Amino acid sequence: MSATIHPFPRRVEPGLETLMALVATGMNSVNAVILERMQSRIPLIPALAGHLIAGGGKRMRPMLTLSSAALLDYAGNRHYKLAAAVEFIHTATLLHDDVVDGSELRRGKHAANIVFGNPATVLVGDFLFSRAFELMVEDGSLKVLRILSNASAVIAEGEVDQLTAQRQIATGEERYLDIIGAKTAALFAAACRIAAVVAERPEADERALDDYGRNLGIAFQLVDDAIDYDSDADTMGKGRGDDFREGKMTLPVILAYARGNEPERKFWREAISGHRTSDADLGEAIRLIRSHDAVSATRDRARHFADRAIDAIAGFPASAAKAAMTEAAQFAVARRY
Amino acid sequence: MSATIHPFPRRVEPGLETLMALVATGMNSVNAVILERMQSRIPLIPALAGHLIAGGGKRMRPMLTLSSAALLDYAGNRHYKLAAAVEFIHTATLLHDDVVDGSELRRGKHAANIVFGNPATVLVGDFLFSRAFELMVEDGSLKVLRILSNASAVIAEGEVDQLTAQRQIATGEERYLDIIGAKTAALFAAACRIAAVVAERPEADERALDDYGRNLGIAFQLVDDAIDYDSDADTMGKGRGDDFREGKMTLPVILAYARGNEPERKFWREAISGHRTSDADLGEAIRLIRSHDAVSATRDRARHFADRAIDAIAGFPASAAKAAMTEAAQFAVARRY
Repeated sequence: MSATIHPFPRRVEPGLETLMALVATGMNSVNAVILERMQSRIPLIPALAGHLIAGGGKRMRPMLTLSSAALLDYAGNRHYKLAAAVEFIHTATLLHDDVVDGSELRRGKHAANIVFGNPATVLVGDFLFSRAFELMVEDGSLKVLRILSNASAVIAEGEVDQLTAQRQIATGEERYLDIIGAKTAALFAAACRIAAVVAERPEADERALDDYGRNLGIAFQLVDDAIDYDSDADTMGKGRGDDFREGKMTLPVILAYARGNEPERKFWREAISGHRTSDADLGEAIRLIRSHDAVSATRDRARHFADRAIDAIAGFPASAAKAAMTEAAQFAVARRY
Repeated sequence: MSATIHPFPRRVEPGLETLMALVATGMNSVNAVILERMQSRIPLIPALAGHLIAGGGKRMRPMLTLSSAALLDYAGNRHYKLAAAVEFIHTATLLHDDVVDGSELRRGKHAANIVFGNPATVLVGDFLFSRAFELMVEDGSLKVLRILSNASAVIAEGEVDQLTAQRQIATGEERYLDIIGAKTAALFAAACRIAAVVAERPEADERALDDYGRNLGIAFQLVDDAIDYDSDADTMGKGRGDDFREGKMTLPVILAYARGNEPERKFWREAISGHRTSDADLGEAIRLIRSHDAVSATRDRARHFADRAIDAIAGFPASAAKAAMTEAAQFAVARRY
């Protein structure tokens, strides 16, 4: 028996760097719009909006608008304003989410509701949402307005649906996929789709980009939900175990519950209904989730959607944008933060 | 010296009945749109939205869109959908206001936040706001979209400004007029203005209707604020003294403070900063406001803006719509609820 020596393969973990490099120049324009248009004669508005907007975040959605435009060789500049509008919609939903969830941390900092209070946080969310529509109106495409107003309504429906499912142990995988399809993936899809509109591409290209964004969004959310049972608050920028304490039915819990025995299911019923919220309970939840491979199963599900995202843009010719968007989908699954 | 006997004049208090009769048929169409478009696959959404929407309210803003269209002899039906959009924007701001203020009563019923909780109330507000934009997109006028997206941003700014002024005794009349001009009058103005857009009337007509709506909105808000120190919770549908306990600087307080002596000003400083919130304190506040005629002065200010509203549409030929809109402005000042 002879041993073949394989050269150690150069393994490169997929990252967002390729995407970021692709859209770096464009993102400067987007960021300039964001900074300019979050201003107001009321000083509290840019103070609060800036707390979240300056606080980092990957700006995935505007990057997707820009990379989708690059994929289509779009040479204009309408997408900068629209990408900023997409980020404003996203920021508005984050602000409202933090109020809804009573979040304490967001992107590793105190959440806006903690620093500025719920009332101002709700109202500045409303302001940014209105501003987003003002930006779209300035662009002047009714088609873009339709896509993003529809996405906004779907997001709100998804958030309400999630609220309804909260603390409901009976929430299954299908319902969960509906929820994240609405609350997260709809805006990813819209962010990509509008690039095809400004590039005046046929409906088929719109659909392809919509499919890419939607599947990528689901993959991102699945991994976000996996990470809440899989990593430290330090690296993820929000408090670990938040989903657990809030009784959110995310896929790791859904799978651990489905795969669990009766005593384990009893634990989950108590935990999700809010009767087990201690650190020890969180520890037990993580132990059960690991024992049923529910985090890795969640990541497997995410890989499925990332694959669908990649295949959705398979028909476009090879380009730096296509490579970056493909890697972004791989990153969505591989990331640990 | 001879006494002339004047016949006792038939005094008719101005009311909303004339306006309501004018737009009754059209409002059936608007209400049908409202009921249809507040539906969602998520049952909590129509339940919560319906709680507020079915709970009454005058539907002043859609009535103004319809009466403005009637004033311009508009014969189409685009305004029904747009009037519903305006009402959705208004409903969204009411829902968010109730969360922001922690209101307990709205239109004489428990506020939505009390019945359904803050999280759902915030999110259903977002849904209705998005729905409003979907309705506008369906109509397809970028001009209407611009007017209403701008109004929405201005409303949010006004709400944040009001929040900033809350518990600030230094807030004066000018700042207060800025706040109500934004948070209330901007949507009244937009509701009227869009009628001129759908009727394809010249800019001057748009401006006239905008001026009518803006001044009417200020008059309505002034009287609302006067009523909070002048009537019973029973008749006004929200808890009397709410503004007082929330430390809101409304005109009756601003005038009583400005006209007060030093011990009175000390009382106001303590009250507005939140250190005097008992029923006895509210009684004292009402006594001071009465002793300085601050409620009647507030109504006088309202009359000024109502007069400006009436004169803004003076240039239109006499019509049932003009008469109804004139009476509505008189009603805005005269009303006691």
